[in-house]
Amino acid sequence: MSARSTQILEAAARVIARRGVRGLRVEELAEEAGVSTGLLYYHFKDRTGVLRHTLEFINDRAERYTTSRDPDAEPLSPREELDQILLLELQDIPQVRENSTAWGELRASAVFDHVLREDLARATLVWVQEVAALLGQVQPLAPAATLAAAAERLTALLEGLSMRWLSGGLDIDQARTLMSQAIEVELTQLRQP
Amino acid sequence: MSARSTQILEAAARVIARRGVRGLRVEELAEEAGVSTGLLYYHFKDRTGVLRHTLEFINDRAERYTTSRDPDAEPLSPREELDQILLLELQDIPQVRENSTAWGELRASAVFDHVLREDLARATLVWVQEVAALLGQVQPLAPAATLAAAAERLTALLEGLSMRWLSGGLDIDQARTLMSQAIEVELTQLRQP
Repeated sequence: MSARSTQILEAAARVIARRGVRGLRVEELAEEAGVSTGLLYYHFKDRTGVLRHTLEFINDRAERYTTSRDPDAEPLSPREELDQILLLELQDIPQVRENSTAWGELRASAVFDHVLREDLARATLVWVQEVAALLGQVQPLAPAATLAAAAERLTALLEGLSMRWLSGGLDIDQARTLMSQAIEVELTQLRQP
Repeated sequence: MSARSTQILEAAARVIARRGVRGLRVEELAEEAGVSTGLLYYHFKDRTGVLRHTLEFINDRAERYTTSRDPDAEPLSPREELDQILLLELQDIPQVRENSTAWGELRASAVFDHVLREDLARATLVWVQEVAALLGQVQPLAPAATLAAAAERLTALLEGLSMRWLSGGLDIDQARTLMSQAIEVELTQLRQP
């Protein structure tokens, strides 16, 4: 992806996190990104193209901040990786707050607008499969269907807790503690024969 | 509440479920409800008043469809009541779909708009306490803080699953199965000494 495209998508994530998907106008986005609307249409075709690429962009960014680590550090255990992939989505820092707000907005707007549904379902599936794979590394004897169900619940819970955090109903420490307990509860259940 | 007020709030829930909170204009709501804007302002003061009362209205309605039962039927066990209060939020019938869509919208818009936050936090707290009380009836030896945490997770998970259902990522049977398993998993954990 070109530097210009990245610059546009960074601006789109900011605008969505500030005013919601439904507050995103192409003209204002171009202004926010410091590019012409022509260039924006050239890269993304239309507003839908911008939204679809923004979904991909915030997914990639979440992937980076939940999985990156110091290359000189000890490798993480599967359990540590699992905690990291889920709990690092709950950090009160601008990038995570912006990313989570934009993700929540894309999810909420997909209830009304069918255009994003397929991309969102696909992105969610990839995320669920990643979490299921890590659960399987921690509990290798658990059946695949049980792992997939636990991963679907943990990721759906994370979305629910994230919305409560972002809408002021839970503070970040409460949300993290609840998420951390949920991982423990699901792993205990997967340990049962 | 007067019949006219109820009629306005029913229309508000319909409009929010159709186009979102941000699509709610007082003039259109008045038309949808078949009343004058003057009457609408008389009952609810302003748009914020409408939204706050709509939140209360959809809460009361959810309370009715998740707890109502035939007066001649056998009383439910606490475990049956628990299943009912959570699983009856996941029904593919127009009233529940409308209610859940409107609730999800109020939650999502509270991320951007602080005006509903307090009402939403209060309504969520009441719901969490209801679920915690039922969990406590099923597992009387569990500590109050553990019950409250389990209830917070179950209700947040329900919101997360509901959004995946409404945005087309899960079908209703998958969502119900996942919710039902979560109740079982949390109860098993509360049974541990």
